[in-house]
Amino acid sequence: MRYLQRIEKIQAVLRRKKLDGLLVSQPENRRYLSGYSALDHGIAETAGLLLIPAKGDSWLLTDFRFKLQAEAEAGFLRIGLYPKGLLLLLREMLPDLGIRTLGFESHYTLHSFAEKLNGLGEKIGVRVVPTTDLVEKLRAIKDEDEIAKLRASVDLNEQVFDEVYSSIHLGQTEREIALVLESTMRRMGAQSPSFDTIVATGSNSALPHAVPGPVTIERDQPVMIDMGLILDGYCSDMTRTFVIGEPDEHFLTIHRLVRRAQLAAIETIRAGVAAAKVDTVARDIIAAAGYGQAFGHSLGHGVGLAVHEEPRLSSRNGKKLQAGMVVTVEPGIYLPGWGGVRLENMVVVRADGCELLNINSTWLDL
Amino acid sequence: MRYLQRIEKIQAVLRRKKLDGLLVSQPENRRYLSGYSALDHGIAETAGLLLIPAKGDSWLLTDFRFKLQAEAEAGFLRIGLYPKGLLLLLREMLPDLGIRTLGFESHYTLHSFAEKLNGLGEKIGVRVVPTTDLVEKLRAIKDEDEIAKLRASVDLNEQVFDEVYSSIHLGQTEREIALVLESTMRRMGAQSPSFDTIVATGSNSALPHAVPGPVTIERDQPVMIDMGLILDGYCSDMTRTFVIGEPDEHFLTIHRLVRRAQLAAIETIRAGVAAAKVDTVARDIIAAAGYGQAFGHSLGHGVGLAVHEEPRLSSRNGKKLQAGMVVTVEPGIYLPGWGGVRLENMVVVRADGCELLNINSTWLDL
Repeated sequence: MRYLQRIEKIQAVLRRKKLDGLLVSQPENRRYLSGYSALDHGIAETAGLLLIPAKGDSWLLTDFRFKLQAEAEAGFLRIGLYPKGLLLLLREMLPDLGIRTLGFESHYTLHSFAEKLNGLGEKIGVRVVPTTDLVEKLRAIKDEDEIAKLRASVDLNEQVFDEVYSSIHLGQTEREIALVLESTMRRMGAQSPSFDTIVATGSNSALPHAVPGPVTIERDQPVMIDMGLILDGYCSDMTRTFVIGEPDEHFLTIHRLVRRAQLAAIETIRAGVAAAKVDTVARDIIAAAGYGQAFGHSLGHGVGLAVHEEPRLSSRNGKKLQAGMVVTVEPGIYLPGWGGVRLENMVVVRADGCELLNINSTWLDL
Repeated sequence: MRYLQRIEKIQAVLRRKKLDGLLVSQPENRRYLSGYSALDHGIAETAGLLLIPAKGDSWLLTDFRFKLQAEAEAGFLRIGLYPKGLLLLLREMLPDLGIRTLGFESHYTLHSFAEKLNGLGEKIGVRVVPTTDLVEKLRAIKDEDEIAKLRASVDLNEQVFDEVYSSIHLGQTEREIALVLESTMRRMGAQSPSFDTIVATGSNSALPHAVPGPVTIERDQPVMIDMGLILDGYCSDMTRTFVIGEPDEHFLTIHRLVRRAQLAAIETIRAGVAAAKVDTVARDIIAAAGYGQAFGHSLGHGVGLAVHEEPRLSSRNGKKLQAGMVVTVEPGIYLPGWGGVRLENMVVVRADGCELLNINSTWLDL
């Protein structure tokens, strides 16, 4: 069974690191290892944590509200409820399970909770050890089952775009379009958007993370749509920039330049190439045309259960890409006062190159 | 100006606590103090932080992607960009601003980041001090401007419910109804839902946090809808439980019992009463009828910029309610195999009682 195999991999990591157990608080890690799909209300209101001993049965710790869902989705785990808070439950469980050294996820644990966990550890003789990205390292490499789910997510995202694109008209507001996109996602079967949909037109498209507002679509102005959805737990993420009307020469020049940078980056991606190298290939093309300052973010990021995950395609990430990683490639040029162009597709890193998950990518060639 | 006044209140707190500055990472705190409304992608991907010195100008620290939005929305603040990460920027700024003792929000800072901040502090001679809920304490008490926004949010939420309620029919799925509710929210002007809408029917309604699924509405079965939206930054939160068809005696008994507990709690709420007392009043009524074990969550929570905030109406909160607090009152009874009933309204705590924010509350009297 897939989840048990993943848990066994983590248990092997724990034994290697001399940890008797790991507390998994990061929601996508929790889902990856258990299939339990309840959603947190932000980091301060968790729907549960996993307690994975280095050997033996793993536990899903949650509260009353999630008991039935936990049993239905993760019945292969032992379920522990904390009516009076997680710390009191751990105080009983850790000695029972013989856990003397407990790892926790430093990158998804609040400082205030870590302090309390340390306090508990001191009381009951458990050494509490921060860990980072133990599960994320597994998650970064997708198996074919996950890639199939990502492909389905990308595919549905494109279908939603196609359906809504044909209805976009002058005078419609950014906000209306975002609303139609998100409603269409849900109507066509997505669980939800994977992030707040961006629709930005005119000079708003110079904001890489614009929030859709009451601004209307005007003839011949750039329209940037950055959208993604969650299907069966897996995220998609795609950006298109276009005009309703006739693109002028400036738009075409910028669009073609961004597209050229994107294609060159995609051409570079294969297992063994440094992530930073891919970023550099795209960045150099944009910089050579004089727009280096206008491309202020990194080239891309991993996508899986989370819409932003490892690996980053960034000049600061010298690590090599590995087969099975799934990343976005999304160069952009942002010119305050005028607008911006960003183009984003998702690819799977393969041993000998990469595989495009988007189907209608040629749509981007203007 | 409202935001500057709030910042001045926090600066007074900092001086009292002998802190030279505070790093504000919690998104609603950031918005409360600055008006800056950009959304984070979870705690690990912030849209910016505030750096508030005990005296002098405050800063909004963000990255390139949010520069224009930061300037547009929080132009009264100084804007600092961190092209190479927040830590490098702080390394320059803290000595420049003469900050030798820096508070950070322990309850909304990742343990891993706090470790890095401590490391920086050691290098440059800044004492790094965890703080908790400094801004939340201010936020718990709403001014009349905020109460008006909360009232508008509740009002719109009820309008959305009313419109969708009249269209609910047998055979429709939980998921379809949730989708229609969330689309209607946005169409009627909400920024977004304030949490994932819950629509649970039949025995699913025994899960207090059910996720809407493909289950269809059946005649005479309980339907629980827990919904809220964000309007102008402020959240609403409301639960209705009803049947399509004829409620049977069991449903009526449970519904009336929950409603009686709710009304008794509302009757109890006024400034000066302990939060725990309000919880107890409702819980005792449910327990006296033999359903104490079936009411497994606390009675309510504060609502404002966040849908869950201070104060909690819980048996563990012995603090007194204060005028201007806004809370939900939401008793529930959950019977596995049968279903559940939860009723939730929002009230403002006043000196001499409380003010109901919901308008169609009598709808609950069966």
